[in-house]
This record gives sequence, structure tokens and C-alpha cells, in this order.
Amino acid sequence: MPMNKQWILASRPEGAASAGNFALRSAPTSALADGQVLVRHHYLSLDPYMRGRMNDAKSYAAPQPLGQVMQGGTVGEVIESRSPLFSVGDKVVGYGGWQQYSVVDAAQPGVLRKIDDAHVSLSYYLGAVGMPGVTAWYGLVKIIAPRSGETLVVSAASGAVGSAFGALAKARGCRVVGIAGGAEKCRYVTDKLGFDACIDYRVHPDAKSLSQALKAACPDGIDGYFENVGGAIFDAVLSRTNAFARVALCGMIAGYDGAPLPLANPALILINRLRIEGFIVSEHMDIWPEALEELGALVGSGKFRPRESVAQGIESAPEAFLGLLRGRNFGKQLVQLI
Amino acid sequence: MPMNKQWILASRPEGAASAGNFALRSAPTSALADGQVLVRHHYLSLDPYMRGRMNDAKSYAAPQPLGQVMQGGTVGEVIESRSPLFSVGDKVVGYGGWQQYSVVDAAQPGVLRKIDDAHVSLSYYLGAVGMPGVTAWYGLVKIIAPRSGETLVVSAASGAVGSAFGALAKARGCRVVGIAGGAEKCRYVTDKLGFDACIDYRVHPDAKSLSQALKAACPDGIDGYFENVGGAIFDAVLSRTNAFARVALCGMIAGYDGAPLPLANPALILINRLRIEGFIVSEHMDIWPEALEELGALVGSGKFRPRESVAQGIESAPEAFLGLLRGRNFGKQLVQLI
Repeated sequence: MPMNKQWILASRPEGAASAGNFALRSAPTSALADGQVLVRHHYLSLDPYMRGRMNDAKSYAAPQPLGQVMQGGTVGEVIESRSPLFSVGDKVVGYGGWQQYSVVDAAQPGVLRKIDDAHVSLSYYLGAVGMPGVTAWYGLVKIIAPRSGETLVVSAASGAVGSAFGALAKARGCRVVGIAGGAEKCRYVTDKLGFDACIDYRVHPDAKSLSQALKAACPDGIDGYFENVGGAIFDAVLSRTNAFARVALCGMIAGYDGAPLPLANPALILINRLRIEGFIVSEHMDIWPEALEELGALVGSGKFRPRESVAQGIESAPEAFLGLLRGRNFGKQLVQLI
Repeated sequence: MPMNKQWILASRPEGAASAGNFALRSAPTSALADGQVLVRHHYLSLDPYMRGRMNDAKSYAAPQPLGQVMQGGTVGEVIESRSPLFSVGDKVVGYGGWQQYSVVDAAQPGVLRKIDDAHVSLSYYLGAVGMPGVTAWYGLVKIIAPRSGETLVVSAASGAVGSAFGALAKARGCRVVGIAGGAEKCRYVTDKLGFDACIDYRVHPDAKSLSQALKAACPDGIDGYFENVGGAIFDAVLSRTNAFARVALCGMIAGYDGAPLPLANPALILINRLRIEGFIVSEHMDIWPEALEELGALVGSGKFRPRESVAQGIESAPEAFLGLLRGRNFGKQLVQLI
């Protein structure tokens, strides 16, 4: 039985998360019971939602338990099987956590899914053709439901969700404007991802300045917004919405570290007759096949080649995660484990 | 031609509206052109939305123009007609404004509608069987769309919209909890309107205290909220929402007077996967017949007898309106003109 390095949540953050909240331990993997498989992880996904679960607060998901392996999505290979459902050598995507190996009860619905790495490289199943991509798809298709020619805005545009949102929205004939941090990311968003414009929030430090930049980038106003961030960016975008604009809200990363970030002027929801809807993509499993088919085709055809930030080795996970929370990643943040 | 007393908007408020913003003038009604009718108003409706239009701010409706008659709903009687559509003696509901008479181009769609005062008294067409009632109906039926047994909350519960919301929600088998100002209004909401509970916001001066009171009144959490007020009440209700709760937002009276009131914790929209939707009932004319039919039946059968605050004489309109903005009315605020 191989030795398995794993990161556990050692303490809950007070304010910003820090490296001291995590502890590395090593243990041999357990022997397989009937119906179980042993998966060796190739990539671990790091995602902003993980920060929310580090708090002991009421939320849609139970908090990450203290003293247990950090939860997270993984892709890998079955290296031992006592299940008729999976064979040794199968490539799989699952929820193996911040560790090198996981033992999985393979018959549980949804815990492990076979994937094909012939046309789509394995790591994309944690990004564009995985949870972040489906998140973008749901917000765009099921909440914003844009008509061709409408103007849509997405924050964190160079990230895993934002970049998929842009590709899906362009395929529907929309004008797509991104918001990202820094000139390099903004160049990437327009030049490589094909957005119509991108606003660097670092040169617009408050909602008023950002609102002016949005006015220039969205001359016909904003019809749909995919909210990833919260705070001043959310305020600025709302100030430029058209009547009957739709807002899909699936992350408020700016507020994870402590005090809630207020929304400055909720009266705009009435004034512009907005619809704002929060969602968690794991509660909408019915749409995953349709979303993954479109995303797989976009990536498989080479039309959409999202960037990845890949940290090396299980030891690097906490620092890579803290960097993600501070916007230091560039594209989907992964940890490569082998 | 009768002399017509009318209130004009003399100046825009800075901060709270005051009596000095209005000026009374008197002018003979103009002679009728072909197709016009002269309506003598019996009742003038006073509604919170009028405060919003006194500001010169971007909103869904154009601002009330300075120097012109204050806009507002009226019921009355046709006393002269040069239109084949209306006869002298017809009772009508329209949008005659803060004055004793109005001259109306009767062929314009939607400006004037004949009403039957045999089963429903005239004044109710400005309240329960008029715009406020339809507003409650739209928010309840089209946005909140409750299932029997769900818990719904409405602010300004003793007012025209809130009381209709309660009657419609009880008819659908919901638990309905009101929020109102003062013990007398709360007693009325539970004892006369039949709400299951009512919270007096005056004894709960902040969101935290209000949130505790809501916890007690809504032991199963809140599934739907009809937002009339904004501010601390909105914050407190959001803190008690269940997953997938719906919020219909049609007024934020607490913010009309000046600085926007922030929403303290918009992350709750994500955490509880809320849907928040702003609406203006005049943009949904297609649902008015269905809504008015249900509301007319509730009122006509005597099941729903909403209370009215009736000021006497056109001269009293500004003071009655300012009282409404401060919550001094008790039920639908009207001005009786004859």
C-alpha cells in the first residue's frame, strides 16, 4: 500500500487564510474493501469556494471538518479495483481531496466518472470541461439566457469560470466584457480568449472609477453579469445595468476573509428591474451532460484553449491556494501530483 | 367650466420631502375637444412611489416634472363627455393627478377604465382592487410562486400592498408573517387581516434584533419575501431565508429620501441560492385582468376588507402624503375630494 501525503485543515482562519491553517501528514492508503477502487491523483483542482468552507459558518455546504483531508476535485487513474464498474487504467474525475491517493466506494452515484483523455487533456476536466466550465454554462444559459447582441460582463475573466463564460457567450453572439487584475491578464482576455474588451480593476480602485470604465466598454449598457467577486466591482456593474438585466451570482471571493461586503445601492434592483440569482452548480446535475458536451466540443476542437497555472507536487498546494485567493494565478489553478 | 384646484410640484426635495415642495393653484378646467371627457375625482390615491418621482434621478419612470400637476391615480365620475366611449355618470378609474378634475383623451388605451361600484366601493379601485393589489398579486404569484405551507414575509404589512399580499397568500395556504410599525398596526394585521404573526419593527431597532424576532415568528425559516421597505428590515429578513427563497422587490421606501441604503450581506444571495427580482407592475399589464378578478372576488365577498386612511379635501393632500412616507397612515392612504 503506497504512502499517501495529504493536507488536512489544522485550524480555521481568523481573517485571511494562511499557510498555518494547513498541516501535511503521511499515511499508508487503506486496503480496499469490496466495491472500492484506489485512485492515484494526477491533478488536484484549487477553487475559490474552498475558502468559504474553511469557515465554520452556515452555508450551502457543510464546513470543511477540522483535522480531515481538505476536500477538492481531482483527476487521476484507477490503479487498483475491487469494483466491477472501474478497471485498472481507467482515467477518472472525482472528489479525491488534497492528497496523492484516494480510496473510493465506486458504486456511490456521482463520486467517480470515467473520462476520455484522447481529445481533451486530463487537467481540463477540472476546469473548462469540469465544474468551473459547467458553472459558467449554467449562469450564462439558465440564468442570464442572453439574446445575440446583448452585452455581458464577467468578473475574474481570466480565471477558469470567467474564461469559459467568455467562450460560451461569444458562441452566442454576445458582446463580452471582462474584468481582471493587471494589464497582462487583460491582454490575455482580449487577445487570446477573444473578449471584446477587458477592464483592469487595479487601475480603477473604487466603484466610481470602475463604473466610468464600464460605461466606455459597454456603450449600450449591461444586459447580463456573471458575478464572481463582490464588493466594489459588483456595485460598479449594477450601476451600468440596463432594464431587465440578469445577474448570475456564484461566488463572492472578495468577502470570504471576514466582514461581509455590503452592496451599496440595492435600490438599483428595483430601478432597473433586475433579477439576481445565486446558484451552486452541484445542485443542478441535470444540466451537466448538456453543458459538458458543449464545453468538450469547444476545447476538443481547439477553439477554446484556456490557460492553466500549474503548481508542482502535493507540498505546493497551500501556497498555490493562497495565491489563487490573492489573484496570483493566471487561469485555472491546478496542482500536478505526478 | 368648474374651477379646478390642483397641487403642483414646486421644488424638488433635498433630503426629506416637505410641504414646501408643493404649491396649490386654481384654474378653470379647459373646454372639451372632440374625444375628450371631463372627470370629477372622488378619491385621489397617495402612494410611496410618488416620492421617488419627486427626485430628478434616473429611474424606471420619468421624474415628475416641476411646475406641473402631481401625478397620481384617481377614481371619479364622468360629468361631461365628447367621447362615444364614456357617458355622463360612468364611474371611472384613471390617472388624474392631485386635482379635483381632469380632462382626458378617452380613446388613449389604458388612461380610463369603467368600474362597477355596486359590489366594490369606489375607493377600493385605488387600493385592494387597483394598482397596490395587483402589485401584491404579481410579486406573490409571478415571482414568489409559493407552495402551500411555505412561510412568507411582507414588510409594511398593514398598508395597501401588504394587506392584499396577506389575503392572497393566506388563500394559497401559506404561513404569512407581517412587519409593521407599532402595536396597533400589528394587532390589526393579525386580528383583522388574518396574518399568522406580525413583528413591530419599532421595538426592534436594528437588523440583529429584528432577525431574532423573525426567527421566533418563522420557526421553519422564510421561503418568500415581499420587500416594500429596504434597509435593516431587508437585511434581517435575508438572514432568515431558506435555501431557494424568492424575494419580490417593488419598493424601497426607506431609501427615497437621500443616501442609498446598502444591503449588508449580499453573500447570502449565494449562500442561500436566493432569487431577487425587482418589478414595476405597470410593465405587466397582461396579468391585470386575472389579478383584478381574484382581488375583486376577495373584496366583493367581504372576505377581505382592507382599512383605509382617508384625508378630507384636496387641500390635505401634501400633509397626508408626507404622513404616508413616515408611516402615519393606517391602511391605504386616500384623499376624498367630494
